[in-house]
Amino acid sequence: MAVIDLNCDLGESFGVYELGNDKEVLKEITSANVACGYHAGDHNVMAKTVEYAVEHGVAVGAHPGFLDLIGFGRRAIQSEPSDIYHLIIYQISALKGFCQLHQTKMQHVKPHGALYQMAATDRNIADAIARAVYDTDFELILFGLAGSELVKAGEDIGLNVAQEVFADRTYQSDGTLTPRSQSDAMIHQPEEAVEQVKQMVKEKTCTAVDGTVFPLQADTICVHGDNPRSLDFTRQLKEVLKEEGIQLQPLIME
Amino acid sequence: MAVIDLNCDLGESFGVYELGNDKEVLKEITSANVACGYHAGDHNVMAKTVEYAVEHGVAVGAHPGFLDLIGFGRRAIQSEPSDIYHLIIYQISALKGFCQLHQTKMQHVKPHGALYQMAATDRNIADAIARAVYDTDFELILFGLAGSELVKAGEDIGLNVAQEVFADRTYQSDGTLTPRSQSDAMIHQPEEAVEQVKQMVKEKTCTAVDGTVFPLQADTICVHGDNPRSLDFTRQLKEVLKEEGIQLQPLIME
Amino acid sequence: MAVIDLNCDLGESFGVYELGNDKEVLKEITSANVACGYHAGDHNVMAKTVEYAVEHGVAVGAHPGFLDLIGFGRRAIQSEPSDIYHLIIYQISALKGFCQLHQTKMQHVKPHGALYQMAATDRNIADAIARAVYDTDFELILFGLAGSELVKAGEDIGLNVAQEVFADRTYQSDGTLTPRSQSDAMIHQPEEAVEQVKQMVKEKTCTAVDGTVFPLQADTICVHGDNPRSLDFTRQLKEVLKEEGIQLQPLIME
Amino acid sequence: MAVIDLNCDLGESFGVYELGNDKEVLKEITSANVACGYHAGDHNVMAKTVEYAVEHGVAVGAHPGFLDLIGFGRRAIQSEPSDIYHLIIYQISALKGFCQLHQTKMQHVKPHGALYQMAATDRNIADAIARAVYDTDFELILFGLAGSELVKAGEDIGLNVAQEVFADRTYQSDGTLTPRSQSDAMIHQPEEAVEQVKQMVKEKTCTAVDGTVFPLQADTICVHGDNPRSLDFTRQLKEVLKEEGIQLQPLIME
Repeated sequence: MAVIDLNCDLGESFGVYELGNDKEVLKEITSANVACGYHAGDHNVMAKTVEYAVEHGVAVGAHPGFLDLIGFGRRAIQSEPSDIYHLIIYQISALKGFCQLHQTKMQHVKPHGALYQMAATDRNIADAIARAVYDTDFELILFGLAGSELVKAGEDIGLNVAQEVFADRTYQSDGTLTPRSQSDAMIHQPEEAVEQVKQMVKEKTCTAVDGTVFPLQADTICVHGDNPRSLDFTRQLKEVLKEEGIQLQPLIME
Repeated sequence: MAVIDLNCDLGESFGVYELGNDKEVLKEITSANVACGYHAGDHNVMAKTVEYAVEHGVAVGAHPGFLDLIGFGRRAIQSEPSDIYHLIIYQISALKGFCQLHQTKMQHVKPHGALYQMAATDRNIADAIARAVYDTDFELILFGLAGSELVKAGEDIGLNVAQEVFADRTYQSDGTLTPRSQSDAMIHQPEEAVEQVKQMVKEKTCTAVDGTVFPLQADTICVHGDNPRSLDFTRQLKEVLKEEGIQLQPLIME
Repeated sequence: MAVIDLNCDLGESFGVYELGNDKEVLKEITSANVACGYHAGDHNVMAKTVEYAVEHGVAVGAHPGFLDLIGFGRRAIQSEPSDIYHLIIYQISALKGFCQLHQTKMQHVKPHGALYQMAATDRNIADAIARAVYDTDFELILFGLAGSELVKAGEDIGLNVAQEVFADRTYQSDGTLTPRSQSDAMIHQPEEAVEQVKQMVKEKTCTAVDGTVFPLQADTICVHGDNPRSLDFTRQLKEVLKEEGIQLQPLIME
Repeated sequence: MAVIDLNCDLGESFGVYELGNDKEVLKEITSANVACGYHAGDHNVMAKTVEYAVEHGVAVGAHPGFLDLIGFGRRAIQSEPSDIYHLIIYQISALKGFCQLHQTKMQHVKPHGALYQMAATDRNIADAIARAVYDTDFELILFGLAGSELVKAGEDIGLNVAQEVFADRTYQSDGTLTPRSQSDAMIHQPEEAVEQVKQMVKEKTCTAVDGTVFPLQADTICVHGDNPRSLDFTRQLKEVLKEEGIQLQPLIME
């Protein structure tokens, strides 16, 4: 039977600033990517987010990003691989403290924002991240864009890797996401997005914007929860996956 | 045979900013209190500091402080105990990542600056810190001012506690340090400071500024390494401790 | 004819984090207290907030706070008066750049959060703030809690001062606000809050919780805009003030 | 008579962290580039630095950088021109507060680190900076790498521009600096560096690493003061400039 994981970025509040709709989202997903205090989140938010995730039976992962609260970690920052190696270790380890507090084993690591984008194509950065994850805990699962350098770096170092796909983004024939700057980057019709996911999970292929069909491995689907529309879409997607007999489950199943 | 630990704050550089003389200090001490990125230190500095400490056979401890780089964690910040509980867990856990990377077990936790001062007299804060340390790793040793609320809080929760004394500070008859605002707060003559330490370690007493002799347990002595004079003093102190047959060693001895 | 100013804290968003309902609030008030980047706000938010305020004909003031984004400037931080003096100058001056950009003269300065509270009773801090405002621009109007040390410090240095009152807070007979920790600190009935303001503006008195009537000068009323209820209350308050023939206007009228 | 300005980055300390040798450097230079709190400096350091500069008769300029203390503003951060426009206004304006406090008129603005590098070749960023400087105070002089996009952007918007040259860096035939990654990027012999400056000031040319002689305008020379060797070099350079009859003076001479 086909299985898939649904992941979402959570714990992105900071101090008095609230972001997202974590409690509702947790009802829908199987894996939570928890911000670790550098681009979002703080020690109080992290504690609460892990607590809620555990209550909902959602697997917890670290979502480390650049030290850039004002830019929410979305801006590329010129960085040495050694710097990235250390900032990943710092953030994963900090979150591990809260996982242990709530008696849950951290399942995965997914780099956030610009770090995720850079790691998709820059092998040096991908290697630094993969090595940091491996050196912190070799049982962690590394999330990366399906077919990306990060996925390759993770596999090469011996990590379990989950290939991530996007329901609402279009793809180029080389497997990369269509840049947001292009008009056809997004899939706006929920039905089309659902169709894309069905194809990805059942056929293990994706149809690029130019019509090319290319192979693609889908282990986890990224969904969003920051507005009612995205939450609705997630529910709709789950409905269809269920009808298709595709089971939702996190990546570790002990 | 009498034994004592010598501890010093290390890893207080940040980015391009260098502070302290860590490589020299590591030759003299037995325990290092490593800043964890909130009041000082960053992920690169932490990695390097743990690496050096391990190379020198010095035990590593976390030195968590307030999130206050501009104030170096020295300013009292009005805080909820739950906030302090979480910031301690965050910082200890982050440093644990680097301890594990360099195959060393974290020995202790010593709160930094204003947090240390507040925990000496405010039992709520002391309890939050002790509980955070215990919940993160109950084998960690908690460092607190000898006779302070922090020491009591640590003992009450079941932690191993190390009572810390100061060579160059004078004491009040109630066991507290003479506030720095008073003219007789500091001991300026190295000989006197050495005498105070000898009495603390061998007699387990201390003579207050008013002449009262009170009992005091000395498990670890705080020394400084930020200027050549303090480094000289540390060497002089070690010489005398050696002559007196007092052995220097960290607090865990496996 | 009686006149009064209505002020509200604005520009408290930061990066992707949005706070408040600035565009709606600007329709209701006469003076805006704009965060300056230390406890909230950033350079982009400041630019936009000043632009909107000018569009709505609302007078702009600086709302400097502690450098404490995680605590939103609400936590007392132990500080040297010279440090407060400089941080006030820094923040006022930074905001002045955006006032000039939008061809508006900065009207006032109101310290934020813990700084406002500390300045109400601690004369050293009040003096540091008043002097910073005066030295930056002696034409600025200093906002302080009616009857507070900050008001006195402002008057003593020669600043124009606006005494601020709260519609929804109760007062002690000595003119201080009833601490929030007490059960009778807040006025929950809008009607009562409106009555209190009427008395303050028309009679220049206030009735304390113990029934004492004491004199009080009300130049500006603090309102809130962070939720629909507070916005409703402001509209209701304005309606009554209008009926009573009390005119709303900012404090500079050139 | 030939004249030249000597500028140096100052005020780069932060909190307890001290950087540079500002008091000694101020004896040697004519213009100071003062950090504004984003990549270095804080409100206390800024106040002190402006005070010292004024005491030494050194002209004050703003040295705005990226909000990146951990990277000291040296890392390229992907940024919107509007974001750069606002961060420049914020930082210049904040420093203006301290200039006014010490009754000195701000002379110039020199972007720091990665911002300076990016503005040298990226016209959009150069334009954002030039416009921010112009909109804040059109009398400010903009410092940019001689022949760079920033110089052109400044001239196009109507600012007075000072073309900056480096004594100890080699140049390519297109007028750009040899990248530091290349082995011949630096001039290590003080005598050669002095010769290069002499040629720049007197002949208004520079000899590139490939032997090409190209025209170059030198209005201000960047020197360093962070170590004794660089301070010695500055003194040596001044000696030679004096012998050659080249007068040192800041760019505004009222």
